[in-house]
Amino acid sequence: MTFTAKQIADFLKGEIVGNPEVTVSNFSKIEEGKAGTITFLANPKYTHYIYNTEADIVLVNSGFEPEKPVRATLIKVPNAYAALASLMEMVNKSIPGKTGIDTMSFISPTANLGGEVYVGAFAYIGDHAEIGDSCKIYPQSYIGDNVKIGKNTVIYPGVRIYHNCVIGDNCILHSGAVVGADGFGFSKEGEMYHKIPQLGNVIIEDDVEIGANTAIDRAVMGSTIIRRGVKLDNLIQIAHNCEIGEHTAMAAQVGIAGSTKIGENCVFGGQAGIGGHITIGKNSQIGAQSGIISNTKEGSEIIGSPAMPVKSFFKSSIIMPKLPDMYRQLNALEKELSELKKKLESGD
Amino acid sequence: MTFTAKQIADFLKGEIVGNPEVTVSNFSKIEEGKAGTITFLANPKYTHYIYNTEADIVLVNSGFEPEKPVRATLIKVPNAYAALASLMEMVNKSIPGKTGIDTMSFISPTANLGGEVYVGAFAYIGDHAEIGDSCKIYPQSYIGDNVKIGKNTVIYPGVRIYHNCVIGDNCILHSGAVVGADGFGFSKEGEMYHKIPQLGNVIIEDDVEIGANTAIDRAVMGSTIIRRGVKLDNLIQIAHNCEIGEHTAMAAQVGIAGSTKIGENCVFGGQAGIGGHITIGKNSQIGAQSGIISNTKEGSEIIGSPAMPVKSFFKSSIIMPKLPDMYRQLNALEKELSELKKKLESGD
Amino acid sequence: MTFTAKQIADFLKGEIVGNPEVTVSNFSKIEEGKAGTITFLANPKYTHYIYNTEADIVLVNSGFEPEKPVRATLIKVPNAYAALASLMEMVNKSIPGKTGIDTMSFISPTANLGGEVYVGAFAYIGDHAEIGDSCKIYPQSYIGDNVKIGKNTVIYPGVRIYHNCVIGDNCILHSGAVVGADGFGFSKEGEMYHKIPQLGNVIIEDDVEIGANTAIDRAVMGSTIIRRGVKLDNLIQIAHNCEIGEHTAMAAQVGIAGSTKIGENCVFGGQAGIGGHITIGKNSQIGAQSGIISNTKEGSEIIGSPAMPVKSFFKSSIIMPKLPDMYRQLNALEKELSELKKKLESGD
Repeated sequence: MTFTAKQIADFLKGEIVGNPEVTVSNFSKIEEGKAGTITFLANPKYTHYIYNTEADIVLVNSGFEPEKPVRATLIKVPNAYAALASLMEMVNKSIPGKTGIDTMSFISPTANLGGEVYVGAFAYIGDHAEIGDSCKIYPQSYIGDNVKIGKNTVIYPGVRIYHNCVIGDNCILHSGAVVGADGFGFSKEGEMYHKIPQLGNVIIEDDVEIGANTAIDRAVMGSTIIRRGVKLDNLIQIAHNCEIGEHTAMAAQVGIAGSTKIGENCVFGGQAGIGGHITIGKNSQIGAQSGIISNTKEGSEIIGSPAMPVKSFFKSSIIMPKLPDMYRQLNALEKELSELKKKLESGD
Repeated sequence: MTFTAKQIADFLKGEIVGNPEVTVSNFSKIEEGKAGTITFLANPKYTHYIYNTEADIVLVNSGFEPEKPVRATLIKVPNAYAALASLMEMVNKSIPGKTGIDTMSFISPTANLGGEVYVGAFAYIGDHAEIGDSCKIYPQSYIGDNVKIGKNTVIYPGVRIYHNCVIGDNCILHSGAVVGADGFGFSKEGEMYHKIPQLGNVIIEDDVEIGANTAIDRAVMGSTIIRRGVKLDNLIQIAHNCEIGEHTAMAAQVGIAGSTKIGENCVFGGQAGIGGHITIGKNSQIGAQSGIISNTKEGSEIIGSPAMPVKSFFKSSIIMPKLPDMYRQLNALEKELSELKKKLESGD
Repeated sequence: MTFTAKQIADFLKGEIVGNPEVTVSNFSKIEEGKAGTITFLANPKYTHYIYNTEADIVLVNSGFEPEKPVRATLIKVPNAYAALASLMEMVNKSIPGKTGIDTMSFISPTANLGGEVYVGAFAYIGDHAEIGDSCKIYPQSYIGDNVKIGKNTVIYPGVRIYHNCVIGDNCILHSGAVVGADGFGFSKEGEMYHKIPQLGNVIIEDDVEIGANTAIDRAVMGSTIIRRGVKLDNLIQIAHNCEIGEHTAMAAQVGIAGSTKIGENCVFGGQAGIGGHITIGKNSQIGAQSGIISNTKEGSEIIGSPAMPVKSFFKSSIIMPKLPDMYRQLNALEKELSELKKKLESGD
């Protein structure tokens, strides 16, 4: 597909600065800009690239005024990043999607499929499963017995959804995600662990995206719940009976232990670990690699293991390499003071 | 299924306090107790919920005496949590399991299947594989050539077991678990890594549970060994030639580097990382996010990266945020002492 | 297969010390040496095992001179570990590989397969995919539309390669690896996350090995790039638009955030986490569990979170458990000095 700057500006309701007839057929990042592509400038840190980029069109925020000549055609929009996203989305939607039911799939006679559903080869849909309209069930994915999936949800290849779990509308589950495996629950009898059957399920509400190889365990009883609009990156662990609040986002490799409740609109950096049976207040920001072992208040901004306020963490981190010197200095001072006191006591 | 308090008390050999005729048909957690459910009270921290729970039956420890009236019927048992587990297990066993060999599976003509084995659609069973009686091989799982699996083992959808690996009786492997992929072994020649073929295997003994997306690498030679009764949570990494002792449990996202030996009855918190070629003594408790780089004694209770005794870690952690103040204070003291000494030397 | 010491010495061009006619049929580690096996000694830490090992042949470095009698036959070679590797490789190559196209696979009529390709049962090869000569596509793996794979590449069971990705020659992808899932990119509109379509791809160059359940996300635009000779262990996260330099190796559970560039010949310890939009200089060594949040120079050797030079980290770590004592000592000193000054001022 090829578009002119004018077509793009019209679509975005933006203002053209430069040649409206220049054409592009792909996207690029401003620091890697190539001829025939459109790029964008949102982060001021990247501004210097605009004067040399080989991209032919650059989306910029309305307030942007170049300090030097720019070869590329600019399109001014209120929010360059959002404009880019809507443009990418338009292109994305124009790519024809998969359709139809592959004959090499397994669909239980008691399963119930909505209209315009795609089911790829070697996909498995269990007894009494319900799949909403316009869902895409990619090859080799597994939908267990009694699973319910809403409309427009995309299940990529190799996703596994265990029995009785519930997935909302407009969700995206990436390859290798496992929803509803048994929670890690045992009672100890002597040295032996005795398995506690995990009889609950997982409920994933609407508009949730789950990354590749992320695991969300079923509840021991009741439900593990992922609320509306949650975005989970890859390789995340959500243990049994957790609840993740609306519009909370977690970067890759985060782990949440059992029965913990995360508030809405939180953001988690990668590899953070949250203990079990605690509550993270809404609007919290949890730094990468943090370790949280107790309840946190709304709007907490913490990092470290154990976690502390962000500023405090970085101030303390600066001191860390000085510890050996501080240790020596402290002992030297103690000695010096002791000698001074001795001298004063004995002397004069 | 619906049961009366009397039926449940009879099954558990417990003592009823309250109405023996009340019925329940599901389980709930005491803090989320709903009408028509049975719950339990084991952790004293949750005692206050018992006075308001809407659950109709509560399993309690024999010694429990309510301080206020309780609406629900109580069933007193020696261990409320274990009683709940056995009740859940009874219900779990009553759910009919999958049976039969799906025609859309692949079973090598040289494979050998025991009695009452389930093989789901798109499962693959390789040459000379041996599957014991009553195993359940769910859809889309992969059993490589020469793999041996004992009796009553459950292989959930999308598990991959590479060639020559051995799995015991009564094991459970969750979706996405990978057993026997190549260990990470290379020799360096100049800047190039040269692959060391990984010719060993993985041996998993009886009664082991492996979580979703956990990876256990095959040995370079000999075996990576997971001993009897080990419980591994999700997304764990066990490198080549490790040995995990009997009844050791690891929470999610733990990583064990190559050739490390873990003793029996250890417990690992989530995201802990253990270096290669070391030994962790039996009965050790390794805290979440710990980093262990040297041998530890039996019964160690350690945490931190690098790890230290638990008490010491938390005491030091409390001081961490004070480091910048300590640094200033130390330098101020040094200056003060130096000025005092100057004054004393010059003065009188 | 059984070989005599003489046959092995001839193959390796090594020198025999001991009985040339002794035979072995398997490999063992020196500390677990068994009769009928060949082992090796490379790490001096293991030297004492050579005097008691039951292995019948030991590969040793040319310079090795035993201090006590050794029962086993020795074969002296310039590099015992490399010699072992080449011997294992020879054995490995002699194991017959899988061949042919299974009738229960799905291959798009528009896909293009080279010569001598193996495609296992339930594998899926999408439209316009290109698979080079001698590739092995194991059962249940997924090759998306327009994917290109070079020659001699091995795709183990359950690997998922999303559309448009490119894989080089002589690569090995282990089970559960996911290549090309969507990067984690959203724009925030109020409390809602709005998905940024991820229209780029992943390029994996030649001679790359990817571990089990590792995830490499597709670029938002352009490519996420894994350069020639890179070795990634299991459960690693590589975010969108990263670039990993040639011959860089990462241990398990490392996470690299978006748009970060890693230089060539770097080595990463397990569970290290690297922030987004930064650069790691070539030849760097990043310790296990490190957290890196800013650019690092070539040849950096760092560890910790936040990271510091290795020596400094371990020196500071030794002080960590002393912090509570230092805190008390510091406050005691301050008090002592203050009392001394008061005494001096008031006194005389």
